[in-house]
Amino acid sequence: MTVDGAGNIRARLEGSDPNAPAVLSGSHIDTVLHGGKYDGAVGTLGAVEAVQSILESGLPRRCPIEVAVFAEEEGSNFGSTLSGSKALVGKYTLADMEKLSNPEGKSMAGLLREGGYAPETMADNLLRPEKIRAMMELHIEQSVVLESRGVPVGIVEAVAGIRVLEIRIKGVPNHAGATPMTLRQDPLAAAARLMGTIEDLAKGSETGSTVGTVGKISCHPNVSNIIPGEVTFTVDIRDVQEAGIEFVAAGIKKEAAALAVSRDVSIDVVHISESAPVRLDGHIAGVTEKCAGRRNFSSMRMNSGAVHDACMFAPLVPTGMIFIPSKGGRSHVPEEFTDPGDIEKGVSLLADVLYELSK
Amino acid sequence: MTVDGAGNIRARLEGSDPNAPAVLSGSHIDTVLHGGKYDGAVGTLGAVEAVQSILESGLPRRCPIEVAVFAEEEGSNFGSTLSGSKALVGKYTLADMEKLSNPEGKSMAGLLREGGYAPETMADNLLRPEKIRAMMELHIEQSVVLESRGVPVGIVEAVAGIRVLEIRIKGVPNHAGATPMTLRQDPLAAAARLMGTIEDLAKGSETGSTVGTVGKISCHPNVSNIIPGEVTFTVDIRDVQEAGIEFVAAGIKKEAAALAVSRDVSIDVVHISESAPVRLDGHIAGVTEKCAGRRNFSSMRMNSGAVHDACMFAPLVPTGMIFIPSKGGRSHVPEEFTDPGDIEKGVSLLADVLYELSK
Repeated sequence: MTVDGAGNIRARLEGSDPNAPAVLSGSHIDTVLHGGKYDGAVGTLGAVEAVQSILESGLPRRCPIEVAVFAEEEGSNFGSTLSGSKALVGKYTLADMEKLSNPEGKSMAGLLREGGYAPETMADNLLRPEKIRAMMELHIEQSVVLESRGVPVGIVEAVAGIRVLEIRIKGVPNHAGATPMTLRQDPLAAAARLMGTIEDLAKGSETGSTVGTVGKISCHPNVSNIIPGEVTFTVDIRDVQEAGIEFVAAGIKKEAAALAVSRDVSIDVVHISESAPVRLDGHIAGVTEKCAGRRNFSSMRMNSGAVHDACMFAPLVPTGMIFIPSKGGRSHVPEEFTDPGDIEKGVSLLADVLYELSK
Repeated sequence: MTVDGAGNIRARLEGSDPNAPAVLSGSHIDTVLHGGKYDGAVGTLGAVEAVQSILESGLPRRCPIEVAVFAEEEGSNFGSTLSGSKALVGKYTLADMEKLSNPEGKSMAGLLREGGYAPETMADNLLRPEKIRAMMELHIEQSVVLESRGVPVGIVEAVAGIRVLEIRIKGVPNHAGATPMTLRQDPLAAAARLMGTIEDLAKGSETGSTVGTVGKISCHPNVSNIIPGEVTFTVDIRDVQEAGIEFVAAGIKKEAAALAVSRDVSIDVVHISESAPVRLDGHIAGVTEKCAGRRNFSSMRMNSGAVHDACMFAPLVPTGMIFIPSKGGRSHVPEEFTDPGDIEKGVSLLADVLYELSK
């Protein structure tokens, strides 16, 4: 077992061919504050259990199999997700780790050193893609798709890209009683129409996989008898196809411009952040599907709306993901739950796929 | 000059007939925190100036003319508007004044006593409607109607009634990326549609004088990448005709019920408060119009969306109001402004009307 300078743990079961590239599996062990017990942990312990069952089966293996336990995936400490896997693939340099800091101002590198890790060694211990044959991550779905369809296994084909916008609307605050409807410059009324359009755009996107969410809104002065003067809200747009994200974002800009004119308010559409969609490996998806069929597990191809450590591997090595159902789709809350029977299915399937890929 | 137990000041100019009922005019001198200089003060000083000019004119008068200066109209201290005029007409008893308290917990009655007033004497000093021939209030419009039409004088026909609702929508909080559009129970998306409907209803009301405002909204957990779980917002509906208020309120209930079903969320429409529309005196409006015409002031009949001290008098004695323009419609802010030329017109007209009514 090795622990790298970013706190990622890796353990290796050797195969018969010492020069063969390894099959890697794992997930993260950190969690969000007040989160649940399954997000990350299922894929981490599941990989350990899968390797154990392969070992116990006594079947011959050619490639080594590695279990990886990633640090700091949720971004709870430093505000940036996938920190451990980003450091492993070289997306975070030592300088980045010195710069990233928690709310108390302590840097990621500093906290790693306090914990006995050596972040300065990461540059010499980056993932070597030529040494990895495949990466598999088992994870809870964190949504309701599998549950609502009664399917125990999801085979992830792609992870959605994300574009976050902030919409800032300025109107004219005024007396709620004394201002006729026709003389208003009401930013919240404009926001309501734009939020409706955002939902229509996401539902109408031709990719069929687009989602658009307004999760955060603020209104000023936020008093019941005053027409608001200023409203700001966020838009989180995701799709596994960039075209879907672009469709919604372009539609928002167009509608915002039209509303600004028709309602005599100013509307700024501000680009906050963006990450591109990630396509997972088709061959691995096929292997996973075949293995599920052999065990008589019904499965479905699906996409992931959330990012996972696997995303850091997909551009470098063939990467796959298995999803198992989340009860009620709840995640990042203490009520997060996955049925032990579903976990067993997921881990059995993971073991089969790892073994198949290690042949 | 007399000062009553609620802090209202009254001064009297006698007429030739000592038994004739008085013509009353005035407004309030309190203001909101960080408010402007014109709301209330214009009608108070305007009444003093009008009486002064009547006196200086040397014209014969039959009825006495009284100036009234009302205390605590804005509700800034005790959270309830029109406190002084309510006490004067008996809508607040001593018990009410003992119960009403400011944020530091001091009662209205207690503070009056600290200021040297005797709230316990109010019961014996209530307004005697048979002694009042008419009540006239001059006030800034606090909106943009007069300014936008370039008319210096508004003759108020009615003061809008108000119904305040709170809409509470509960959905299911979920991952913004992992939850397909078709599987969402998003309370903010439902709120956006309902807010749009509220605007449509107010604009479509057949009375033509209805306004509907969403001024305050809260969203939980209010995080950009989580579909909200709960959204609450207020609706302030006003109209001089109860039918307009009822039309919007009934439409909201109907649409809320439909949205609750179609979007699988719960929507509670909670009644917060209500006040009925107040109709001012038609004869006084006619006299005011005639007086304005004599001075070649263009004038228009209009309604008031805000409540005023005059509302407490309208059910008891013939009551009228004159509005003068507010620059940009701004009020309750330091930028509140009315052109001195417009104030002069309003006060001249008030003097004419008071004189006409005192004949």
